[in-house]
Amino acid sequence: MVNSLDNNPPHKVVIVGGGFGGLYAAKTLAKAAVNVTLIDKRNFHLFQPLLYQVATGALSPADISSPLRSVLSKSKNTKVLLGEVNNIDPEAKQVTVGDEAIAYDTLIVATGAKHSYFGKDNWEEFAPGLKTVEDAIEMRSRIFSAFEAAEKETDPEKRRAWLTFVIVGGGPTGVELAGAIAELANQTLKEDFRNIDTSEAKILLLEGLDRILPPFAPELSQEAEASLTRLGVIVQTKTLVTNIENDTVTLKQGDEVKEIASKTVLWAAGVKASAMGKVLAERTGAECDRAGRIIVEPDLSIKGHPNIFVVGDLANFSHQNGKPLPGVAPVAKQEGEYVATLVQQRLAGKSLPPFAYTDHGSLAMIGHNSAVVDLGFIKLKGFFAWLFWLVIHIYFLIEFDNKLVVMIQWAWNYFTRNRGARLITGKESITEFVIADNKQPVNV
Amino acid sequence: MVNSLDNNPPHKVVIVGGGFGGLYAAKTLAKAAVNVTLIDKRNFHLFQPLLYQVATGALSPADISSPLRSVLSKSKNTKVLLGEVNNIDPEAKQVTVGDEAIAYDTLIVATGAKHSYFGKDNWEEFAPGLKTVEDAIEMRSRIFSAFEAAEKETDPEKRRAWLTFVIVGGGPTGVELAGAIAELANQTLKEDFRNIDTSEAKILLLEGLDRILPPFAPELSQEAEASLTRLGVIVQTKTLVTNIENDTVTLKQGDEVKEIASKTVLWAAGVKASAMGKVLAERTGAECDRAGRIIVEPDLSIKGHPNIFVVGDLANFSHQNGKPLPGVAPVAKQEGEYVATLVQQRLAGKSLPPFAYTDHGSLAMIGHNSAVVDLGFIKLKGFFAWLFWLVIHIYFLIEFDNKLVVMIQWAWNYFTRNRGARLITGKESITEFVIADNKQPVNV
Repeated sequence: MVNSLDNNPPHKVVIVGGGFGGLYAAKTLAKAAVNVTLIDKRNFHLFQPLLYQVATGALSPADISSPLRSVLSKSKNTKVLLGEVNNIDPEAKQVTVGDEAIAYDTLIVATGAKHSYFGKDNWEEFAPGLKTVEDAIEMRSRIFSAFEAAEKETDPEKRRAWLTFVIVGGGPTGVELAGAIAELANQTLKEDFRNIDTSEAKILLLEGLDRILPPFAPELSQEAEASLTRLGVIVQTKTLVTNIENDTVTLKQGDEVKEIASKTVLWAAGVKASAMGKVLAERTGAECDRAGRIIVEPDLSIKGHPNIFVVGDLANFSHQNGKPLPGVAPVAKQEGEYVATLVQQRLAGKSLPPFAYTDHGSLAMIGHNSAVVDLGFIKLKGFFAWLFWLVIHIYFLIEFDNKLVVMIQWAWNYFTRNRGARLITGKESITEFVIADNKQPVNV
Repeated sequence: MVNSLDNNPPHKVVIVGGGFGGLYAAKTLAKAAVNVTLIDKRNFHLFQPLLYQVATGALSPADISSPLRSVLSKSKNTKVLLGEVNNIDPEAKQVTVGDEAIAYDTLIVATGAKHSYFGKDNWEEFAPGLKTVEDAIEMRSRIFSAFEAAEKETDPEKRRAWLTFVIVGGGPTGVELAGAIAELANQTLKEDFRNIDTSEAKILLLEGLDRILPPFAPELSQEAEASLTRLGVIVQTKTLVTNIENDTVTLKQGDEVKEIASKTVLWAAGVKASAMGKVLAERTGAECDRAGRIIVEPDLSIKGHPNIFVVGDLANFSHQNGKPLPGVAPVAKQEGEYVATLVQQRLAGKSLPPFAYTDHGSLAMIGHNSAVVDLGFIKLKGFFAWLFWLVIHIYFLIEFDNKLVVMIQWAWNYFTRNRGARLITGKESITEFVIADNKQPVNV
């Protein structure tokens, strides 16, 4: 497979990160005459767009994860290395994992983003975000523990705080979380409790801008807001969160300041570059934006380092329309594929035009039979949007691995309105939490 | 539903523990004229017989868990309470959860068993057992991390220690773990690594008695040993473990003492009563056996406390054939059903003959197309035993909740030999583990 004629020893491509950007780069290089090493902290690729379904008990983590080794087992030119890169040396052309140095000819950095609390890192304890499997399990525990605590609580005011869910951020993740929690409260859990009526749960979706789902066409934002309202979600736009504490969220709406008593606050607002961004900027002199993302050249390389590329959420690519491309899976995927193709072209002595993102549209699930889809040339809502959402997600899941199980699980959830994966788990037993004084921070 | 004629206010049944014993007691009481409160530390019932499939990456925790509230949602006389009982007061007839006292007329204690290291509690760190979802996830992380560490290790001796798996205990759990790990090494992971040949993994199954699966007929023990040997498992009977340390297991076979270098030791040997057993014995004066189990009367009540019953793994019932019934799901289920029926009979002024366990037989999965089934009147092995095992497990899973997903997952695993749920997860990132010195204890 390795063409040793004009390429001996083979060109070494090191990819850091097995998310959409890194994995699609590796897959695109599967048959190329190069040696690929994919380094990731985790042994699996995570299908992040469906993480909210784990957080709300519809799917299990493994349903949306694919072991990296298994996805790449047929790419015989590719090695998977489990570990964390702690240094990059552009002069020596090597990265360091533990105390092992790994040489590269081309480096592709795709380490993604993590949540950002805009400098208020103390909010994280009370308002977890949703980026990893552990985050999703933590959210799941908090959501289901809140209903359990409400069932036990006799003080009506405290009970109300347990039944108040605040979701910060009206992008797709926030919308999908709000819709799923509303369905839990109104459908799935309705018959399960004896002291509380779960449908009395108050679900607030807060957005700073003047409409939710800002990347969508305004009429779809409106439609999404109307659908969520029908599900019982209280959508509040032009709303800024100014503080989050143990059981209180402070809001600012215009000049008005409000306090909301809530035990469960979920963060779907901001992201910033992963830690690797800082290392990379220091070592290469690359310029970063405010979120810590690396500002890349038209071919996704770092200025002055034509053999170091950044793809996915860590990259700020602003050459297409003056503003950075959004941090979504399709951007990462196309960037990964572009760089992999460029590497092959360069080895063949050729070149490629600058990267250009093809936007196929945006979609967001709202709930049972309800979604919004914006493909630019066509806008869908309601049942057809929902069906489109399902088909697209199953299509992308299948590309990695057969996710028949997800289909069956969804079909089952659809007809029964049940969600089987609503486990409260974790090293610290739930018990410590439920018998603790309700004034304590939830930490299960 | 509550018959208030001769039973006003309704008789209060409190059940502690939502395993097989407690849950079947509650289900049997669903239509009875009593008030039932089921108390559990966890919000789900766990189908423990399949926990080894979570530990080896074939199923997700949620696939073998059923939310207790969902299982009991139609039992309108039943309340589920999430919490840990910290005291029992037989005089006041109440149990305490946190600082809440819950009154009972009849108490059913079904808190089960936990692993026992025969006084060597320091072994637990190096040889985790398999009782909870967290245990299974810990085992799964250790098994898959061991292959990852072997892939990175360059010292052949250390690499061999990473590829050596020792399973202590040749009962059904030990046999099923050994078979599943052998299949992982020989089939599932075979194409996934570049530096190691996973089929070189050494899997040892250690048993103190002279044959594995002692509850089965001797010819089935033989058959199981032969099947495991064909899968590459080294079965060592009459073998006592005398010490377990970081990376060494010390064995005694007759007079011979051996040391085995292994990084992954899994405990499937002994169990002892859960902590509630001690509390119960102290408060009621009940007699315990060496494993801490409560010695019960022929009707499963505690001597001198006809309204307190113990069922499942916590009970030592020796009235049937002089020795205690085994700690398996069918015993717990039948005991739970018996006590629930007895409570109803007593309320109707009637009585029941002593409890008698109907043994329908034993089964153990070995691997692909291979199992052993001992129904007493018929003994099955190989493919038919395997099919029987599948059908029985699906039948029991369906009783709780539709576990169509498990069937599909199994069908998929069967045809592809893949195991999708092989995630290494946990609060402490895998990275800390893989980049650590190999001399450190595995703690992921």
